[in-house]
Amino acid sequence: MFERTINRICGYKNALYRFKKLGFVRVFSDNLSDAVGVTPSQVRKDFSMFAISGNKRGGYKVDELLEKICFILGKDDVCNVVVVGAGNIGLALMKYGGFEKENMTIKAAFDIDPAKFSEKENIPVLPLSELAVYVKKEDIKVGIIAVPDIAAQHVADLMVAAGVRGILNFAPILLRCGGETVVKNVNLELELENIIYFVNAREKKGTVLEHETKQP
Amino acid sequence: MFERTINRICGYKNALYRFKKLGFVRVFSDNLSDAVGVTPSQVRKDFSMFAISGNKRGGYKVDELLEKICFILGKDDVCNVVVVGAGNIGLALMKYGGFEKENMTIKAAFDIDPAKFSEKENIPVLPLSELAVYVKKEDIKVGIIAVPDIAAQHVADLMVAAGVRGILNFAPILLRCGGETVVKNVNLELELENIIYFVNAREKKGTVLEHETKQP
Repeated sequence: MFERTINRICGYKNALYRFKKLGFVRVFSDNLSDAVGVTPSQVRKDFSMFAISGNKRGGYKVDELLEKICFILGKDDVCNVVVVGAGNIGLALMKYGGFEKENMTIKAAFDIDPAKFSEKENIPVLPLSELAVYVKKEDIKVGIIAVPDIAAQHVADLMVAAGVRGILNFAPILLRCGGETVVKNVNLELELENIIYFVNAREKKGTVLEHETKQP
Repeated sequence: MFERTINRICGYKNALYRFKKLGFVRVFSDNLSDAVGVTPSQVRKDFSMFAISGNKRGGYKVDELLEKICFILGKDDVCNVVVVGAGNIGLALMKYGGFEKENMTIKAAFDIDPAKFSEKENIPVLPLSELAVYVKKEDIKVGIIAVPDIAAQHVADLMVAAGVRGILNFAPILLRCGGETVVKNVNLELELENIIYFVNAREKKGTVLEHETKQP
Protein backbone atom coordinates (compact mmCIF):
# COMPACT_ATOMS: atom_id res chain seq x y z
CA MET A 1 0.00 0.00 0.00
CA PHE A 2 1.30 3.41 -0.94
CA GLU A 3 0.58 4.78 2.51
CA ARG A 4 3.09 2.38 4.03
CA THR A 5 5.72 3.53 1.58
CA ILE A 6 5.17 7.12 2.63
CA ASN A 7 5.33 6.06 6.28
CA ARG A 8 8.68 4.44 5.62
CA ILE A 9 9.94 7.46 3.66
CA CYS A 10 9.06 9.65 6.67
CA GLY A 11 10.93 7.15 8.84
CA TYR A 12 14.02 7.35 6.63
CA LYS A 13 13.88 11.13 6.83
CA ASN A 14 13.77 11.11 10.64
CA ALA A 15 16.62 8.61 10.77
CA LEU A 16 18.65 10.77 8.36
CA TYR A 17 18.21 13.79 10.62
CA ARG A 18 19.52 11.72 13.51
CA PHE A 19 22.48 10.45 11.44
CA LYS A 20 23.22 14.01 10.38
CA LYS A 21 23.29 15.16 14.00
CA LEU A 22 25.78 12.37 14.72
CA GLY A 23 28.04 13.70 11.98
CA PHE A 24 27.30 11.16 9.23
CA VAL A 25 28.04 12.38 5.71
CA ARG A 26 27.10 9.15 3.92
CA VAL A 27 24.71 6.36 4.81
CA PHE A 28 24.03 2.91 3.38
CA SER A 29 20.68 1.25 2.91
CA ASP A 30 21.68 -1.03 5.81
CA ASN A 31 21.93 1.97 8.15
CA LEU A 32 18.48 3.14 7.16
CA SER A 33 16.97 -0.34 7.28
CA ASP A 34 18.32 -0.87 10.81
CA ALA A 35 16.93 2.47 11.96
CA VAL A 36 13.46 1.94 10.50
CA GLY A 37 13.15 -1.81 11.01
CA VAL A 38 12.86 -2.99 7.39
CA THR A 39 15.16 -4.90 5.05
CA PRO A 40 17.88 -3.08 3.08
CA SER A 41 16.23 -4.19 -0.17
CA GLN A 42 12.99 -2.55 0.99
CA VAL A 43 14.89 0.73 1.44
CA ARG A 44 16.32 0.50 -2.08
CA LYS A 45 12.92 -0.45 -3.52
CA ASP A 46 11.26 2.53 -1.81
CA PHE A 47 13.92 4.89 -3.14
CA SER A 48 13.70 3.48 -6.63
CA MET A 49 9.97 4.31 -6.65
CA PHE A 50 11.01 7.94 -6.48
CA ALA A 51 14.00 7.54 -8.79
CA ILE A 52 16.52 7.97 -5.98
CA SER A 53 19.61 5.90 -6.59
CA GLY A 54 22.74 5.54 -4.51
CA ASN A 55 26.28 4.69 -5.39
CA LYS A 56 26.95 1.06 -4.52
CA ARG A 57 30.34 1.85 -3.09
CA GLY A 58 29.56 5.11 -1.44
CA GLY A 59 25.96 4.68 -0.33
CA TYR A 60 23.92 7.85 -0.24
CA LYS A 61 25.05 11.35 0.67
CA VAL A 62 23.02 12.35 3.71
CA ASP A 63 22.37 15.94 2.64
CA GLU A 64 21.38 15.06 -0.92
CA LEU A 65 19.13 12.26 0.24
CA LEU A 66 17.44 14.49 2.80
CA GLU A 67 16.84 17.15 0.20
CA LYS A 68 15.27 14.66 -2.20
CA ILE A 69 13.08 13.10 0.49
CA CYS A 70 11.91 16.48 1.74
CA PHE A 71 11.01 17.41 -1.83
CA ILE A 72 8.99 14.18 -2.20
CA LEU A 73 7.17 14.82 1.06
CA GLY A 74 6.52 18.45 0.15
CA LYS A 75 8.29 19.52 3.33
CA ASP A 76 9.33 22.89 1.99
CA ASP A 77 5.88 24.28 2.58
CA VAL A 78 4.87 25.05 6.13
CA CYS A 79 1.63 23.27 6.90
CA ASN A 80 -0.80 25.01 9.19
CA VAL A 81 -3.05 22.89 11.34
CA VAL A 82 -5.94 23.55 13.73
CA VAL A 83 -6.91 21.54 16.80
CA VAL A 84 -10.48 21.20 18.01
CA GLY A 85 -10.72 20.34 21.69
CA ALA A 86 -8.51 22.12 24.20
CA GLY A 87 -8.58 19.32 26.78
CA ASN A 88 -5.58 17.32 27.97
CA ILE A 89 -4.70 15.81 24.61
CA GLY A 90 -5.36 19.03 22.69
CA LEU A 91 -3.27 21.13 25.06
CA ALA A 92 -0.43 18.60 25.01
CA LEU A 93 -0.38 18.71 21.21
CA MET A 94 -0.32 22.52 21.31
CA LYS A 95 2.71 22.46 23.63
CA TYR A 96 4.39 19.57 21.83
CA GLY A 97 7.59 20.63 20.08
CA GLY A 98 7.79 17.71 17.68
CA PHE A 99 5.59 19.20 14.98
CA GLU A 100 7.39 22.52 14.55
CA LYS A 101 10.66 20.94 13.51
CA GLU A 102 8.77 19.22 10.69
CA ASN A 103 7.35 22.51 9.40
CA MET A 104 3.95 21.70 10.83
CA THR A 105 2.42 24.48 12.90
CA ILE A 106 -0.67 24.40 15.06
CA LYS A 107 -2.12 27.84 14.37
CA ALA A 108 -5.19 27.81 16.61
CA ALA A 109 -7.34 25.64 18.82
CA PHE A 110 -11.13 25.65 19.17
CA ASP A 111 -13.39 24.63 22.01
CA ILE A 112 -16.95 25.12 23.21
CA ASP A 113 -15.96 25.88 26.81
CA PRO A 114 -15.59 29.67 27.33
CA ALA A 115 -13.29 28.99 30.29
CA LYS A 116 -10.71 27.69 27.82
CA PHE A 117 -10.81 30.63 25.41
CA SER A 118 -7.67 32.72 25.28
CA GLU A 119 -6.27 34.96 22.60
CA LYS A 120 -3.11 35.93 24.43
CA GLU A 121 -1.37 32.59 24.21
CA ASN A 122 1.06 31.61 21.51
CA ILE A 123 -1.68 29.46 20.05
CA PRO A 124 -5.10 31.07 20.61
CA VAL A 125 -8.06 29.02 21.84
CA LEU A 126 -11.15 30.30 20.04
CA PRO A 127 -14.88 29.46 20.16
CA LEU A 128 -15.83 26.50 17.98
CA SER A 129 -18.35 28.75 16.23
CA GLU A 130 -15.42 30.61 14.66
CA LEU A 131 -13.85 27.45 13.18
CA ALA A 132 -15.37 27.69 9.70
CA VAL A 133 -14.44 31.33 9.15
CA TYR A 134 -10.92 30.75 10.49
CA VAL A 135 -10.29 27.66 8.37
CA LYS A 136 -11.41 29.45 5.21
CA LYS A 137 -9.51 32.66 5.97
CA GLU A 138 -6.25 30.91 6.82
CA ASP A 139 -6.69 28.22 4.13
CA ILE A 140 -6.22 25.42 6.67
CA LYS A 141 -6.23 21.95 5.12
CA VAL A 142 -5.50 19.74 8.12
CA GLY A 143 -7.32 19.47 11.44
CA ILE A 144 -6.79 17.50 14.64
CA ILE A 145 -9.81 16.24 16.57
CA ALA A 146 -9.23 15.92 20.31
CA VAL A 147 -12.81 16.02 21.62
CA PRO A 148 -14.88 13.32 23.39
CA ASP A 149 -16.25 10.59 21.12
CA ILE A 150 -19.83 11.88 21.11
CA ALA A 151 -18.71 15.23 19.68
CA ALA A 152 -16.15 13.92 17.18
CA GLN A 153 -18.39 13.32 14.14
CA HIS A 154 -19.99 16.76 14.51
CA VAL A 155 -16.55 18.39 14.63
CA ALA A 156 -15.42 16.34 11.61
CA ASP A 157 -18.48 17.51 9.66
CA LEU A 158 -17.74 21.14 10.57
CA MET A 159 -14.12 20.74 9.50
CA VAL A 160 -14.90 19.12 6.17
CA ALA A 161 -17.61 21.69 5.38
CA ALA A 162 -15.10 24.47 6.07
CA GLY A 163 -12.53 23.00 3.70
CA VAL A 164 -10.34 20.72 5.84
CA ARG A 165 -9.08 17.80 3.74
CA GLY A 166 -7.13 15.76 6.28
CA ILE A 167 -8.03 14.84 9.85
CA LEU A 168 -5.97 13.31 12.64
CA ASN A 169 -8.58 11.88 15.00
CA PHE A 170 -7.88 11.12 18.66
CA ALA A 171 -11.51 10.30 19.52
CA PRO A 172 -12.10 6.53 19.83
CA ILE A 173 -14.77 6.47 17.13
CA LEU A 174 -14.90 5.76 13.41
CA LEU A 175 -15.43 9.04 11.53
CA ARG A 176 -17.46 9.18 8.33
CA CYS A 177 -16.08 11.95 6.14
CA GLY A 178 -16.47 10.79 2.55
CA GLY A 179 -13.70 9.61 0.29
CA GLU A 180 -12.18 13.03 -0.30
CA THR A 181 -10.97 13.45 3.25
CA VAL A 182 -7.88 11.66 4.56
CA VAL A 183 -8.60 10.42 8.08
CA LYS A 184 -6.08 8.83 10.42
CA ASN A 185 -6.96 7.60 13.87
CA VAL A 186 -4.82 7.56 16.98
CA ASN A 187 -6.70 5.53 19.54
CA LEU A 188 -4.70 5.63 22.75
CA GLU A 189 -6.97 3.35 24.78
CA LEU A 190 -6.91 0.78 22.00
CA GLU A 191 -3.11 0.81 21.75
CA LEU A 192 -2.70 0.37 25.49
CA GLU A 193 -5.45 -2.27 25.74
CA ASN A 194 -3.80 -4.16 22.94
CA ILE A 195 -0.44 -4.24 24.70
CA ILE A 196 -2.06 -5.31 27.95
CA TYR A 197 -3.91 -8.11 26.18
CA PHE A 198 -0.72 -9.52 24.66
CA VAL A 199 1.29 -9.14 27.85
CA ASN A 200 -1.44 -10.97 29.79
CA ALA A 201 -1.74 -13.64 27.10
CA ARG A 202 1.99 -14.32 27.31
CA GLU A 203 1.98 -14.42 31.09
CA LYS A 204 -0.90 -16.86 31.14
CA LYS A 205 0.40 -19.14 28.45
CA GLY A 206 4.01 -18.77 29.43
CA THR A 207 4.85 -18.78 25.77
CA VAL A 208 6.01 -16.16 23.38
CA LEU A 209 3.31 -15.46 20.82
CA GLU A 210 4.28 -14.63 17.31
CA HIS A 211 3.89 -10.93 17.58
CA GLU A 212 6.13 -8.06 16.92
CA THR A 213 5.12 -4.57 16.10
CA LYS A 214 7.38 -2.90 13.64
CA GLN A 215 7.59 0.79 13.28
CA PRO A 216 6.45 1.66 9.78
CA MET B 1 -2.72 -11.30 11.96
CA PHE B 2 -3.96 -12.02 15.45
CA GLU B 3 -3.15 -8.51 16.60
CA ARG B 4 -5.67 -7.06 14.15
CA THR B 5 -8.33 -9.39 15.49
CA ILE B 6 -7.70 -8.15 19.02
CA ASN B 7 -7.81 -4.56 17.75
CA ARG B 8 -11.20 -5.24 16.21
CA ILE B 9 -12.45 -7.01 19.35
CA CYS B 10 -11.47 -3.89 21.35
CA GLY B 11 -13.34 -1.82 18.78
CA TYR B 12 -16.48 -3.96 19.14
CA LYS B 13 -16.27 -3.55 22.91
CA ASN B 14 -16.10 0.23 22.67
CA ALA B 15 -18.98 0.28 20.20
CA LEU B 16 -21.01 -1.96 22.51
CA TYR B 17 -20.48 0.45 25.40
CA ARG B 18 -21.77 3.25 23.21
CA PHE B 19 -24.79 1.19 22.08
CA LYS B 20 -25.49 0.33 25.70
CA LYS B 21 -25.46 4.00 26.66
CA LEU B 22 -27.98 4.64 23.89
CA GLY B 23 -30.29 2.01 25.40
CA PHE B 24 -29.64 -0.89 22.98
CA VAL B 25 -30.43 -4.34 24.41
CA ARG B 26 -29.58 -6.30 21.26
CA VAL B 27 -27.22 -5.62 18.39
CA PHE B 28 -26.63 -7.25 15.02
CA SER B 29 -23.31 -7.89 13.34
CA ASP B 30 -24.28 -5.10 10.92
CA ASN B 31 -24.43 -2.58 13.78
CA LEU B 32 -20.98 -3.59 14.95
CA SER B 33 -19.51 -3.69 11.46
CA ASP B 34 -20.82 -0.17 10.77
CA ALA B 35 -19.35 1.12 14.02
CA VAL B 36 -15.93 -0.42 13.52
CA GLY B 37 -15.66 -0.12 9.73
CA VAL B 38 -15.45 -3.79 8.75
CA THR B 39 -17.82 -6.19 7.00
CA PRO B 40 -20.55 -7.99 8.96
CA SER B 41 -18.99 -11.33 8.02
CA GLN B 42 -15.70 -10.16 9.55
CA VAL B 43 -17.55 -9.49 12.81
CA ARG B 44 -19.05 -12.98 12.80
CA LYS B 45 -15.69 -14.54 11.90
CA ASP B 46 -13.96 -12.71 14.75
CA PHE B 47 -16.60 -13.85 17.23
CA SER B 48 -16.46 -17.43 16.01
CA MET B 49 -12.72 -17.46 16.79
CA PHE B 50 -13.70 -17.08 20.43
CA ALA B 51 -16.76 -19.34 20.20
CA ILE B 52 -19.20 -16.46 20.51
CA SER B 53 -22.34 -17.13 18.52
CA GLY B 54 -25.42 -14.99 18.09
CA ASN B 55 -28.98 -15.85 17.33
CA LYS B 56 -29.71 -15.16 13.67
CA ARG B 57 -33.08 -13.62 14.40
CA GLY B 58 -32.21 -11.82 17.56
CA GLY B 59 -28.60 -10.80 17.01
CA TYR B 60 -26.49 -10.59 20.16
CA LYS B 61 -27.56 -9.48 23.62
CA VAL B 62 -25.45 -6.43 24.42
CA ASP B 63 -24.77 -7.32 28.06
CA GLU B 64 -23.87 -10.94 27.36
CA LEU B 65 -21.64 -9.98 24.46
CA LEU B 66 -19.86 -7.33 26.53
CA GLU B 67 -19.27 -9.80 29.31
CA LYS B 68 -17.78 -12.36 26.94
CA ILE B 69 -15.57 -9.81 25.21
CA CYS B 70 -14.32 -8.39 28.49
CA PHE B 71 -13.48 -11.92 29.61
CA ILE B 72 -11.52 -12.52 26.38
CA LEU B 73 -9.62 -9.27 26.82
CA GLY B 74 -8.95 -9.98 30.49
CA LYS B 75 -10.63 -6.73 31.45
CA ASP B 76 -11.63 -7.85 34.93
CA ASP B 77 -8.12 -7.27 36.18
CA VAL B 78 -7.02 -3.71 36.75
CA CYS B 79 -3.81 -3.08 34.87
CA ASN B 80 -1.30 -0.74 36.42
CA VAL B 81 0.95 1.25 34.14
CA VAL B 82 3.90 3.61 34.60
CA VAL B 83 4.88 6.54 32.42
CA VAL B 84 8.47 7.66 31.92
CA GLY B 85 8.75 11.28 30.85
CA ALA B 86 6.62 13.92 32.56
CA GLY B 87 6.70 16.34 29.63
CA ASN B 88 3.69 17.47 27.63
CA ILE B 89 2.71 14.07 26.31
CA GLY B 90 3.38 12.30 29.62
CA LEU B 91 1.39 14.84 31.63
CA ALA B 92 -1.50 14.71 29.16
CA LEU B 93 -1.63 10.92 29.48
CA MET B 94 -1.61 11.22 33.28
CA LYS B 95 -4.59 13.60 33.16
CA TYR B 96 -6.37 11.69 30.42
CA GLY B 97 -9.58 10.08 31.64
CA GLY B 98 -9.90 7.52 28.87
CA PHE B 99 -7.72 4.85 30.45
CA GLU B 100 -9.45 4.63 33.83
CA LYS B 101 -12.78 3.56 32.38
CA GLU B 102 -10.97 0.62 30.77
CA ASN B 103 -9.49 -0.51 34.10
CA MET B 104 -6.08 0.80 33.11
CA THR B 105 -4.46 2.99 35.75
CA ILE B 106 -1.32 5.08 35.49
CA LYS B 107 0.19 4.55 38.93
CA ALA B 108 3.29 6.72 38.73
CA ALA B 109 5.44 8.77 36.39
CA PHE B 110 9.23 9.03 36.30
CA ASP B 111 11.51 11.77 35.07
CA ILE B 112 15.11 12.92 35.43
CA ASP B 113 14.21 16.58 36.02
CA PRO B 114 13.94 17.31 39.78
CA ALA B 115 11.67 20.28 38.99
CA LYS B 116 9.02 17.81 37.88
CA PHE B 117 9.13 15.55 40.94
CA SER B 118 6.05 15.58 43.12
CA GLU B 119 4.64 13.06 45.51
CA LYS B 120 1.54 14.99 46.46
CA GLU B 121 -0.28 14.64 43.18
CA ASN B 122 -2.79 11.94 42.39
CA ILE B 123 -0.11 10.32 40.26
CA PRO B 124 3.35 10.89 41.77
CA VAL B 125 6.29 11.96 39.59
CA LEU B 126 9.38 10.16 40.89
CA PRO B 127 13.09 10.17 39.98
CA LEU B 128 13.94 7.81 37.11
CA SER B 129 16.46 6.13 39.40
CA GLU B 130 13.54 4.72 41.40
CA LEU B 131 11.88 3.11 38.37
CA ALA B 132 13.33 -0.38 38.77
CA VAL B 133 12.47 -0.72 42.45
CA TYR B 134 8.96 0.66 41.88
CA VAL B 135 8.23 -1.62 38.92
CA LYS B 136 9.33 -4.68 40.86
CA LYS B 137 7.52 -3.71 44.05
CA GLU B 138 4.22 -2.89 42.31
CA ASP B 139 4.56 -5.73 39.78
CA ILE B 140 4.09 -3.35 36.84
CA LYS B 141 4.00 -5.09 33.48
CA VAL B 142 3.27 -2.19 31.11
CA GLY B 143 5.15 1.07 30.63
CA ILE B 144 4.64 4.17 28.50
CA ILE B 145 7.67 5.97 27.07
CA ALA B 146 7.15 9.70 26.55
CA VAL B 147 10.76 10.94 26.51
CA PRO B 148 12.80 12.52 23.69
CA ASP B 149 14.07 10.09 21.06
CA ILE B 150 17.68 10.08 22.27
CA ALA B 151 16.59 8.85 25.72
CA ALA B 152 13.98 6.33 24.59
CA GLN B 153 16.15 3.23 24.12
CA HIS B 154 17.82 3.74 27.51
CA VAL B 155 14.42 4.01 29.19
CA ALA B 156 13.19 0.93 27.34
CA ASP B 157 16.24 -1.03 28.55
CA LEU B 158 15.60 0.09 32.14
CA MET B 159 11.94 -0.92 31.88
CA VAL B 160 12.64 -4.36 30.43
CA ALA B 161 15.38 -5.05 32.98
CA ALA B 162 12.94 -4.17 35.76
CA GLY B 163 10.28 -6.56 34.48
CA VAL B 164 8.10 -4.51 32.13
CA ARG B 165 6.73 -6.74 29.34
CA GLY B 166 4.78 -4.27 27.21
CA ILE B 167 5.74 -0.77 26.07
CA LEU B 168 3.70 1.97 24.43
CA ASN B 169 6.33 4.19 22.83
CA PHE B 170 5.67 7.82 21.89
CA ALA B 171 9.30 8.56 20.95
CA PRO B 172 9.83 8.65 17.17
CA ILE B 173 12.43 5.91 17.20
CA LEU B 174 12.50 2.15 16.70
CA LEU B 175 13.07 0.44 20.05
CA ARG B 176 15.02 -2.79 20.33
CA CYS B 177 13.67 -4.80 23.24
CA GLY B 178 13.99 -8.45 22.31
CA GLY B 179 11.17 -10.75 21.32
CA GLU B 180 9.68 -11.11 24.78
CA THR B 181 8.53 -7.51 25.01
CA VAL B 182 5.44 -6.23 23.21
CA VAL B 183 6.19 -2.79 21.77
CA LYS B 184 3.67 -0.51 20.10
CA ASN B 185 4.60 2.85 18.66
CA VAL B 186 2.51 5.99 18.49
CA ASN B 187 4.40 8.40 16.28
CA LEU B 188 2.45 11.65 16.25
CA GLU B 189 4.72 13.50 13.81
CA LEU B 190 4.56 10.59 11.41
CA GLU B 191 0.76 10.42 11.51
CA LEU B 192 0.42 14.13 10.87
CA GLU B 193 3.11 14.17 8.18
CA ASN B 194 1.38 11.32 6.46
CA ILE B 195 -1.95 13.15 6.37
CA ILE B 196 -0.29 16.29 5.08
CA TYR B 197 1.47 14.33 2.35
CA PHE B 198 -1.77 12.81 1.08
CA VAL B 199 -3.71 16.07 1.33
CA ASN B 200 -0.98 17.84 -0.66
CA ALA B 201 -0.78 15.01 -3.18
CA ARG B 202 -4.52 15.23 -3.82
CA GLU B 203 -4.45 19.00 -4.11
CA LYS B 204 -1.61 18.85 -6.61
CA LYS B 205 -2.99 16.06 -8.71
CA GLY B 206 -6.59 17.15 -8.32
CA THR B 207 -7.47 13.49 -8.12
CA VAL B 208 -8.61 11.24 -5.37
CA LEU B 209 -5.92 8.70 -4.62
CA GLU B 210 -6.88 5.23 -3.56
CA HIS B 211 -6.42 5.70 0.09
CA GLU B 212 -8.64 5.27 3.04
CA THR B 213 -7.57 4.63 6.56
CA LYS B 214 -9.86 2.31 8.42
CA GLN B 215 -10.03 2.19 12.14
CA PRO B 216 -8.91 -1.28 13.20
